[in-house]
Amino acid sequence: MRNLKLVLAYDGADFSGWQVQPDAATIQGTLAWAIGRVTSENVLPQGSGRTDAGVHALAQVATFATESPIPAENLVKALNDILLPSIRVLEVTEAPPDFHARKSALAKTYRYRIYRDAICPPFLARYVWHYPYPLDEDAMRQAAALVVGEHDFTSFAAVDAEIDSLNREGREVSRKQTSTGFSNVRRVFASSWERQGDELVYTIRGSGFLHHMVRNLVGTFVLVGKGTLPPSDLARILDAQSRSAAGPTAPASGLYLVSVDY
Amino acid sequence: MRNLKLVLAYDGADFSGWQVQPDAATIQGTLAWAIGRVTSENVLPQGSGRTDAGVHALAQVATFATESPIPAENLVKALNDILLPSIRVLEVTEAPPDFHARKSALAKTYRYRIYRDAICPPFLARYVWHYPYPLDEDAMRQAAALVVGEHDFTSFAAVDAEIDSLNREGREVSRKQTSTGFSNVRRVFASSWERQGDELVYTIRGSGFLHHMVRNLVGTFVLVGKGTLPPSDLARILDAQSRSAAGPTAPASGLYLVSVDY
Repeated sequence: MRNLKLVLAYDGADFSGWQVQPDAATIQGTLAWAIGRVTSENVLPQGSGRTDAGVHALAQVATFATESPIPAENLVKALNDILLPSIRVLEVTEAPPDFHARKSALAKTYRYRIYRDAICPPFLARYVWHYPYPLDEDAMRQAAALVVGEHDFTSFAAVDAEIDSLNREGREVSRKQTSTGFSNVRRVFASSWERQGDELVYTIRGSGFLHHMVRNLVGTFVLVGKGTLPPSDLARILDAQSRSAAGPTAPASGLYLVSVDY
Repeated sequence: MRNLKLVLAYDGADFSGWQVQPDAATIQGTLAWAIGRVTSENVLPQGSGRTDAGVHALAQVATFATESPIPAENLVKALNDILLPSIRVLEVTEAPPDFHARKSALAKTYRYRIYRDAICPPFLARYVWHYPYPLDEDAMRQAAALVVGEHDFTSFAAVDAEIDSLNREGREVSRKQTSTGFSNVRRVFASSWERQGDELVYTIRGSGFLHHMVRNLVGTFVLVGKGTLPPSDLARILDAQSRSAAGPTAPASGLYLVSVDY
């Protein structure tokens, strides 16, 4: 049995997220179908983590086991020939038997793109969050620096889809509701905002990420940029360990999984 | 009555072309709906020319007459607020009463993007023609230079959709079928290919363009790039005044209306 590692890019706008679902086009489901067509095997590739509907990837990593003798480099072409252009297999390599896309990951990098000019070019609409209103970018930089290090990120974690949407309407979400027996402590290695022409770009690298964590951080940094919260509030929000302490969830369209380190 | 000039950008992938149709999302139809909502008037904006389904615009120009007192600059925001992000109004200005987007146009510039690398990034798939096979780019440059000047472009004009598709299957299309009483003579001011990173980009500026003319030129230049035709054949193809003498129609996804000069 071979263990294959795939590196993938995808346009999340065309998919209902990574995870396979019975009646929706997902990355994992589409990839499983394509691998099945090429190898005649029924496999479900395991990703480094899920991405939500609309979230993009520049280099998502997935692993799957196969008995197929097809050389790894031929699989790149064979899979791309049948996949839609919105998913591309960038690389297929042989991995050690114990390598697992999610469990072996040491760090991940995400990027979030905010388009700042008054009119967003139509060619960018699927790929950024268009936010043309005033933002104090220095305050956002200060706030971003405060999440570097090891923290309990409960305040930035989606509890579940239903409770998170209640929360957006202002209702209290207690820490108890988020308790799942798993720790919400994560280590952030780098967190910064950078101006790139008409875009304000957030980059975060960390040991792991909770569901909606990057989008909830971005939504909170934007509250800081608007002046609703001072930058120093990031410490208070982390301490609160409550989703309701943080800002709203930023749109999926601006978010990219950039890379996974092993 | 005011005569307003709009400058528009759009992502053609989301639309069935410019021209209004009863049961399809078109740029002209969507714009007419938006203007109707904002001004309470029933108007059909006139474009500088039609773009086909999938063809993009960086700065299409349209005109419409209105009794509405809304200041031109306010219309930009009002229209963009209700239009989908895939159409953006970049500018609205007052135009002289006799200004007409199509009839007043002196020249237009189109661009065509071919993505040359083996794997096309998913974020570019809607915006380029992915052609990763070998091409002699110097031969294509030589061929492009041969269409500069005043020529009868019948060989590069779609006769109509049906006949053009027959032609693609190799059947003869006689000049008679293209005869509509209108001249197919156009003046091309500039025509050139340029390398831009992983892309090969064609730019053409001319007095006017026949239906499918740029896509048929690009399809023919690619035949030259493949070595099927020598560059000098462009002169022969122009002389033939027959659609069957030229190459196939390049995909719509790579084509952009860049600007219209008045």
